[in-house]
Amino acid sequence: MAKIVIKFGGTSVGSIERIIAAAKIIKRKVDKNDKIIVVVSAMAGKTNDLVRQSQKISKNFNKRELDVLLSSGEQVTSALLAGALEECGIKAKSFMGWQIPILTDGEHNNSRIINMHVGKINRYISKKGVAIIPGFQGISNEADITTIGRGGSDATAVSIAKVFKTDECEIYTDVEGVYSTDPKHFPKAKKIKKISYEEMLEMSSLGAKVMQSSAVQTAMMYDLPLHVRSTFSSAEGTKIFGSENIDYSKTITGVTYSKDEAKITLLDVQDKPGVAADIFEPLGKNSINVDMVIQNISPDGKSTDLTFTIKRSDLIKTTKIIKLNKKKVRFKSLSSNKKVSKISIIGAGMITTPGVTYKMFRALAQEKINILAISTSEIKISVIINEADTTNAVKKLHTVFNLD
Amino acid sequence: MAKIVIKFGGTSVGSIERIIAAAKIIKRKVDKNDKIIVVVSAMAGKTNDLVRQSQKISKNFNKRELDVLLSSGEQVTSALLAGALEECGIKAKSFMGWQIPILTDGEHNNSRIINMHVGKINRYISKKGVAIIPGFQGISNEADITTIGRGGSDATAVSIAKVFKTDECEIYTDVEGVYSTDPKHFPKAKKIKKISYEEMLEMSSLGAKVMQSSAVQTAMMYDLPLHVRSTFSSAEGTKIFGSENIDYSKTITGVTYSKDEAKITLLDVQDKPGVAADIFEPLGKNSINVDMVIQNISPDGKSTDLTFTIKRSDLIKTTKIIKLNKKKVRFKSLSSNKKVSKISIIGAGMITTPGVTYKMFRALAQEKINILAISTSEIKISVIINEADTTNAVKKLHTVFNLD
Repeated sequence: MAKIVIKFGGTSVGSIERIIAAAKIIKRKVDKNDKIIVVVSAMAGKTNDLVRQSQKISKNFNKRELDVLLSSGEQVTSALLAGALEECGIKAKSFMGWQIPILTDGEHNNSRIINMHVGKINRYISKKGVAIIPGFQGISNEADITTIGRGGSDATAVSIAKVFKTDECEIYTDVEGVYSTDPKHFPKAKKIKKISYEEMLEMSSLGAKVMQSSAVQTAMMYDLPLHVRSTFSSAEGTKIFGSENIDYSKTITGVTYSKDEAKITLLDVQDKPGVAADIFEPLGKNSINVDMVIQNISPDGKSTDLTFTIKRSDLIKTTKIIKLNKKKVRFKSLSSNKKVSKISIIGAGMITTPGVTYKMFRALAQEKINILAISTSEIKISVIINEADTTNAVKKLHTVFNLD
Repeated sequence: MAKIVIKFGGTSVGSIERIIAAAKIIKRKVDKNDKIIVVVSAMAGKTNDLVRQSQKISKNFNKRELDVLLSSGEQVTSALLAGALEECGIKAKSFMGWQIPILTDGEHNNSRIINMHVGKINRYISKKGVAIIPGFQGISNEADITTIGRGGSDATAVSIAKVFKTDECEIYTDVEGVYSTDPKHFPKAKKIKKISYEEMLEMSSLGAKVMQSSAVQTAMMYDLPLHVRSTFSSAEGTKIFGSENIDYSKTITGVTYSKDEAKITLLDVQDKPGVAADIFEPLGKNSINVDMVIQNISPDGKSTDLTFTIKRSDLIKTTKIIKLNKKKVRFKSLSSNKKVSKISIIGAGMITTPGVTYKMFRALAQEKINILAISTSEIKISVIINEADTTNAVKKLHTVFNLD
């Protein structure tokens, strides 16, 4: 008999009807498994509601109290789900972060779980009880409530899988798994059956948004297999493993895109050590996230062109900061383009397959799509193109790399 | 410098705007007082919302989990109020029931507070911090969350006043205090400046509903003065003391009425020991609350007439139970009247003032109001009359006893 952890995301417990449906999923597992630990998110929309309330009081609401406030969301779901299981005749009990306890590093609003006690929960699940644990919350050394960042319930589930040495960790969500590209806009998108942690991380940060990145990182660190699947279907979802467990018959696993990009190019920047730091330091200090950076090789060794991408919503702020900083960083002119998007192909298989880059560029050229910037890593190639070409580019790459 | 406890009821923290207003009331006190402990209810309507959600899952929702669920309401208010105070530049911190801890007898949904630790809170308020404590919640010996019954935040405030030996206990609510009769329907109703615990208890149970009865009882037991006042006005409210501190220039403190009464009379009941018990035992077992009971003196020593009142909504159930029980309790006939109301005059002063009963009956007679039943205690006289006469009766008694 297995010990498993099951996590339900916000939409999977977004209403009383869905909580009852989640209880039925658990009920089916109770017959097959000895020991079940369930981790729940707040009901969909609840955390945002609470944040909105706090912001009516202060844009800079006290961090300690924000944790007290927000942790109530998962508390409510835990109690409702435990009650729903009891109503089905299944022995169940909620355990708050402080009751277990789940110990964090104490940083408010963005804690990391550092340890948790297993005794209470292990005793309970050994006696055929289903333990319900609110995600996202723990306590500090001083017994303050601390939350572990938005989407933190995934991190709670993975930490529990690790500390309790469970055999499985299932993440129930509102999609059937991870797709080869966005299934909402591209009907040819296919569900990926198996994916490596590394690929999943590249998919997540590019907008696949199926699972929280830091939870995937933790799972990767401890080599814990995950299974992302839908609450609304009994179909198998996507299994996330180390890449050594995956057979790469396909070079590319997925094609992602992001339309909220903007590109800035600085022409004739002085080419000397420290210039890049001088440009990007004030941006970092203003919480502007720079994504791709491309610096051309300087032909004369004196000046160079520098291109980088940022979130489109940061464009005005960014150009302002750079212009204010002109005394320190000299350049000839600044040009920007806010009608660009980023297209990426991801696949752990590309490490061993030569010619992927060439194949990608050729495919885009066939569609007469101009590449404005390129950035590559071991398992990902990203290009910046004009936004208007996004759909054509995704469709073409999806076909060319045999994902249809 | 004083140590005070201030309690805000649900309507006083019913929206973000009101929570900010409550923070301002506290701010004014911070300048004058060294040490402030605040107790809060859930935002108005919140507890009912949560109960409704639980009942969609089960009419008989698991009691332990109901406590986990409902205690989240006060948790939210505590965090929001602490954040609002911090935003005003006042040092403040929320302390959940488990963080203090507040220890209860462990009964779910209806616990009693048996003790609380003072160290953490005393250290904090000694350093000019405002401690915010959620009402209604505590923990059991097994560290389960336990709630202390609806309206239980009043009980939390009074217990804190006792254990922390505070100089004052202010109860902020949505009315300006206790009135001589219902101010909504009788414009001549006057705010009572001082009232004894005993009178307040009689007023509460009759529907004045300004404060939870068990909290008043606790205050009476420990002789803790209370001050009930409005969040929406700076006017002094009603102070509640032991009767020895009150100067009774008026015999009667208030006139209350209740319209949801029904009267049942059993004619020719056998007059022998144990009959009353035989009648009322099955009612009690069916959770029917019998209020007034009047038994006439039996003229022949063999049979008697028995009249009693119950909630109007229990009438059908009650007559059914009595008829089912006819084998055991014999009577000639049962008559009932569901169009009756109960009028009471309350006043600790009536103990030392002869003729109050007579004066009341005479006043009602002058209005041609027929008295259907009478019941008296040391500080209260209640009569049952036809419901249609309610307004006339209240007005007349309010005038006759100099309350206008």
